[in-house]
Amino acid sequence: MSGYSHSPPGYGYGYGHSYGSASPPGQPYGAPPQGQHQYDHKARAYGAPAKPHKNQAHGGGYPAPARSYGSLFAALVPSVFPPGTDPEIIACFQLADQDGSGFIDDKEMQRALSSYNQSFSLRTVHLLMYLFTHTNTRKIGPKEFTALFYSLQSWRGVFERFDRDRSGFIDANELRDALLSLGFAVSPVVLELLVYKFGKTGGKKRAIEYDNFIECCLTVKGLTEKFKEKDKAYTGMGTFTYEEFMLTVLPFLIA
Amino acid sequence: MSGYSHSPPGYGYGYGHSYGSASPPGQPYGAPPQGQHQYDHKARAYGAPAKPHKNQAHGGGYPAPARSYGSLFAALVPSVFPPGTDPEIIACFQLADQDGSGFIDDKEMQRALSSYNQSFSLRTVHLLMYLFTHTNTRKIGPKEFTALFYSLQSWRGVFERFDRDRSGFIDANELRDALLSLGFAVSPVVLELLVYKFGKTGGKKRAIEYDNFIECCLTVKGLTEKFKEKDKAYTGMGTFTYEEFMLTVLPFLIA
Repeated sequence: MSGYSHSPPGYGYGYGHSYGSASPPGQPYGAPPQGQHQYDHKARAYGAPAKPHKNQAHGGGYPAPARSYGSLFAALVPSVFPPGTDPEIIACFQLADQDGSGFIDDKEMQRALSSYNQSFSLRTVHLLMYLFTHTNTRKIGPKEFTALFYSLQSWRGVFERFDRDRSGFIDANELRDALLSLGFAVSPVVLELLVYKFGKTGGKKRAIEYDNFIECCLTVKGLTEKFKEKDKAYTGMGTFTYEEFMLTVLPFLIA
Repeated sequence: MSGYSHSPPGYGYGYGHSYGSASPPGQPYGAPPQGQHQYDHKARAYGAPAKPHKNQAHGGGYPAPARSYGSLFAALVPSVFPPGTDPEIIACFQLADQDGSGFIDDKEMQRALSSYNQSFSLRTVHLLMYLFTHTNTRKIGPKEFTALFYSLQSWRGVFERFDRDRSGFIDANELRDALLSLGFAVSPVVLELLVYKFGKTGGKKRAIEYDNFIECCLTVKGLTEKFKEKDKAYTGMGTFTYEEFMLTVLPFLIA
């Protein structure tokens, strides 16, 4: 294990706030920004730019986050394996990268992970690649692959720890504890929705298999990170423009 | 056609604002709410409630939106067909509702729509049901079914109008115009992402088939409505708590 060995549990989200502690009832959410444009109630549609042109959406007008939304399809920067990477991981990547381009694509990554007994659907692979490369190019380099691999290893350990009866499934309470051990505390309603979305009906109640657990972890981690970018002061509130909201949510939808 | 005939184009979103016109660079997003709790940088995870208990998440602490998040799995209120509903739609629904319960489930709805030459995957049917009933119960009553049916009819008309060469696909420019005619103006970056998510590579460029067009319309309509609930003053900015953000986004993920 290398410098990545400490990355998974907690992901650095050791801070917190009480959910359900926002503004008192009746108080409006978020003050309107200064200097906003006049809007025309009839002539334009929701979100309509006065004069849409390509650079506007890429160039901003709102402060750029750490990673610009314009880079959603940007080319990946070539990377190298971090010092101390497990030689087996390097061999695994190089076997997949047959043309030696320094990147592997979605299907190659699916095969590479399978050789480590980590079988995922292509949609899970796509979500993994998006969240570890922050682009939609569906290619991944050595550094990101290594980080992803160690995260998967850690999540697998968490899954096995909470799947106490070795059934291959975890239930709602076990999911809550597993997410908590990864640094994510979700409310009972969010937990219910996660189990509904990622679980299957097995026996009496819904439960979650390993691959769906990974997709669930990725979703909670990814959405929490996106929210955090909008809540740098840790107030528990995040403000989005319509554009930012759409660009935040759409990558999580799997078509 | 009944009272629903005017509902689709525009969906009442005739207002607008300029995207990219938010706060100047450097200005923080969203003022912190008053009276927030102290947080502990080490002891608790992101979003961790001080003392999680079941009623807290259901009962609020933040002002309830028009429809409470606690009702995500609530039972549907029985409904009736609106006066003037096309008798064929009533017959179609009643044929599907064989036990006369007043509701049809996801598979029954899929069959009912197929008999009108509107074939959709179960995932599209689930998204349709969620957005027209605002619950995850996967059952739908006469009133919501009628609204859904007329919307589909209208969207089909839009698709056929913009699929000028009758290829069964629309491209990015046609999608932009189609969404605009439905009252949704999306930026070039959002458009690119929609085509990437909902399109297929056919010939030289990505294009969108009818069923994915419907899923795309549902997604844009649904997300825009959710954003609007947080932007009642039409400022172009929406503020969410972490809990609200998660409960807004998760229902759009299709597991």
